[in-house]
Amino acid sequence: SAPALGSAPWHLEQPKLWLPASLIVALQAVAGVPNVSCSGAVREQHGCDESMHRCAPPDVVVWPQDVHQVQELAALCYRHDVPMVPFGTGTGLEGGVSAVQGGVCFDLSRMDRISELRVEDFTVAVEPGVTRKALNSYLHSSGLWFPIDPGADASLCGMAATRASGTNAVRYGTMKSNVLNLRVVLPDGRLLHTAGEGRKAREGGTVLRSSRRLLCPEFLDDVMVDACNRHSGLKLPVAPTLFMELHGSQHSVAEQVQQTEELVQQHGGSRFAWAQEVEERQRLWAARHDAWYAALALRPGCKGYSTDVCVPISRLPDIVVEAKRDLQEAGLTGPLVGHVGDGNFHCLLIFDPEDLDETQRIKDFTQRLGRRALALDGTCTGEHGIGLGKRELLREEVGEQGLATMRQIKATLDPKNLMNPGKVL
Amino acid sequence: SAPALGSAPWHLEQPKLWLPASLIVALQAVAGVPNVSCSGAVREQHGCDESMHRCAPPDVVVWPQDVHQVQELAALCYRHDVPMVPFGTGTGLEGGVSAVQGGVCFDLSRMDRISELRVEDFTVAVEPGVTRKALNSYLHSSGLWFPIDPGADASLCGMAATRASGTNAVRYGTMKSNVLNLRVVLPDGRLLHTAGEGRKAREGGTVLRSSRRLLCPEFLDDVMVDACNRHSGLKLPVAPTLFMELHGSQHSVAEQVQQTEELVQQHGGSRFAWAQEVEERQRLWAARHDAWYAALALRPGCKGYSTDVCVPISRLPDIVVEAKRDLQEAGLTGPLVGHVGDGNFHCLLIFDPEDLDETQRIKDFTQRLGRRALALDGTCTGEHGIGLGKRELLREEVGEQGLATMRQIKATLDPKNLMNPGKVL
Repeated sequence: SAPALGSAPWHLEQPKLWLPASLIVALQAVAGVPNVSCSGAVREQHGCDESMHRCAPPDVVVWPQDVHQVQELAALCYRHDVPMVPFGTGTGLEGGVSAVQGGVCFDLSRMDRISELRVEDFTVAVEPGVTRKALNSYLHSSGLWFPIDPGADASLCGMAATRASGTNAVRYGTMKSNVLNLRVVLPDGRLLHTAGEGRKAREGGTVLRSSRRLLCPEFLDDVMVDACNRHSGLKLPVAPTLFMELHGSQHSVAEQVQQTEELVQQHGGSRFAWAQEVEERQRLWAARHDAWYAALALRPGCKGYSTDVCVPISRLPDIVVEAKRDLQEAGLTGPLVGHVGDGNFHCLLIFDPEDLDETQRIKDFTQRLGRRALALDGTCTGEHGIGLGKRELLREEVGEQGLATMRQIKATLDPKNLMNPGKVL
Repeated sequence: SAPALGSAPWHLEQPKLWLPASLIVALQAVAGVPNVSCSGAVREQHGCDESMHRCAPPDVVVWPQDVHQVQELAALCYRHDVPMVPFGTGTGLEGGVSAVQGGVCFDLSRMDRISELRVEDFTVAVEPGVTRKALNSYLHSSGLWFPIDPGADASLCGMAATRASGTNAVRYGTMKSNVLNLRVVLPDGRLLHTAGEGRKAREGGTVLRSSRRLLCPEFLDDVMVDACNRHSGLKLPVAPTLFMELHGSQHSVAEQVQQTEELVQQHGGSRFAWAQEVEERQRLWAARHDAWYAALALRPGCKGYSTDVCVPISRLPDIVVEAKRDLQEAGLTGPLVGHVGDGNFHCLLIFDPEDLDETQRIKDFTQRLGRRALALDGTCTGEHGIGLGKRELLREEVGEQGLATMRQIKATLDPKNLMNPGKVL
């Protein structure tokens, strides 16, 4: 299979399984013939995400329609000792969907029902393929919203898998604190409820919020501001910039604006401006959300890879300064953007995957940055997950004992190692 | 061994192990002779908490001084196949410290060092025996505070074990979201860091907060208000009452007071009063914190047991009304108090442990209330944990599959079942 999107030679491709025709027929019997595909184009589309990792297509893609089908399909794979790889929207940044040992891709995008909205309890039940934007459209008239926002319009199942964070995490927490219950299909097809069986209202329950009331400081460095100006038609001064959002009553917001302006002056900030009109606010946030595409537009035809380190807030200035100097010395393009309220920032590395030397420099820079974060008591991943590229950094971060314990727990739940093998552990 | 505090016949005592003298000597060699005790009084004091569960003393109590000693002591117990039971302050409410299969009690109260306060990162490192009040005393001059407040001055290790919640959980989350890293000693003495090895600043890191800014609605029913009036010398009207705390700038608090008063009027509340002076506020909160002792004072010489159900907020009025009717029909004394912002409330059941009929009615009421909570999509435990008395309710709540999975994970980490055996699973 030809490498598609990301083609950097980071990972050797593993030999593929050859699936028996009887398994394909059995998958079709469960999900319906139109919901099973072995076409080359479909398989390649499902073998990579938005990262630089090599495309490793699954042998077959299946679209289950409900949880019972997922259970039956998993039981089939389990009996045949075939790996299973879940797929949401393919917007991941760490190669999580890459079928490095082949097997069956479970595309969950057609399980996208939303039910049991309980406005008074701030909960709703969602199927795994619902995306965050679809959920917020559904909620629009209820006065509630779902606060986790990692940038991409990711599926909620993928966001749960990576414990997504994003621009509102300081005020509202990450996915971890916003998911009340999960219905989990174990490898052999059994169903597990993480917070109680038969508690319908909490199944897949998602914690909604009614009031936005925080400044969520988003940092853009000068290179990023410049890229956003070009891509989104803004005219911001090309300088390191903080985006914040203030919430509250009129009085309270006026007070906060004044306090924030004073803080900016005290700390030598060069300029403070604020937008009250909805349209202007939306335009600014849209520009921030399109940062990934603005960065890609800096070098048309190139690919991007986003780092994801997170450090204690007090260490953030140091590591940002070091990262920018390192980028310059390595001759790399890498605008910086960050959810700095919790110490998490991304360096959006733009590179030509055909240029093996540049690709190697990207890889080296990423390792150096990860180790810098660890040395500052940080972590190599704030919200994107480990996936394929950070396994060595995970070992350095949690140690042999931590890794052994994670492996033991994984083996307990997945004794045949069929669940997305070759990732993380 | 004579039953001490709680003596209700809920659980049969298991036969005790007979520890070899060589193990006692080896424990003394690690922790020092004065830090190991086999005295009857010490053992009984460590075999029960503040619950009604029968006292089951450990065979020996040891006070480790640091984590290395904990590792060595655990390795000794592991080699001798002897159960280990951790002990913090003994303020638990579910019999968690009860040594139902005997063994070695690890009293962690002398591991009470606090270090590495990082004001800018809102983190601090604590040893397991540090209590929440000790931590807040330590933090007093820093402008930070630790928000989790379950009532009792519990140890932070015990609070982590039960995922303590309390009066500030709606705004600041439970222990789960406030603990960044744990150093865990596995049964065989190996050390595990849950969020990274060698990350000193995050070891046992505890998330601190700088601003209090929420109304944390605490509910007291008429019986509870009456009990608090008597015990704490207050003169509140004897009616169902909500305590709230408003935070913010002068403007913002004035706005919130007005909004809250309007809400109270709209919903037919009979009276709204507020206290701005520090002394008056502290007196009110102290009365709320002493609710357990105020309830016990209703029937001198009796014991107490606190239920701990939690339901979706919208179901709270229903279950409170049902619980109060049930109490009346069963002829039981049980003032109600609750952290109602997250649907968690406690019925403080006061009973004479010598009265077997009343004890049985308490037990039956508790089971009925737990099943009501499950039927309303709630849980049998909001913050006290499962311990001894709720194992049957846990089975009903998470189902056979959930229980089997928890058992598998426990067995993976504790293959000889030496860690606090006989609890939860």
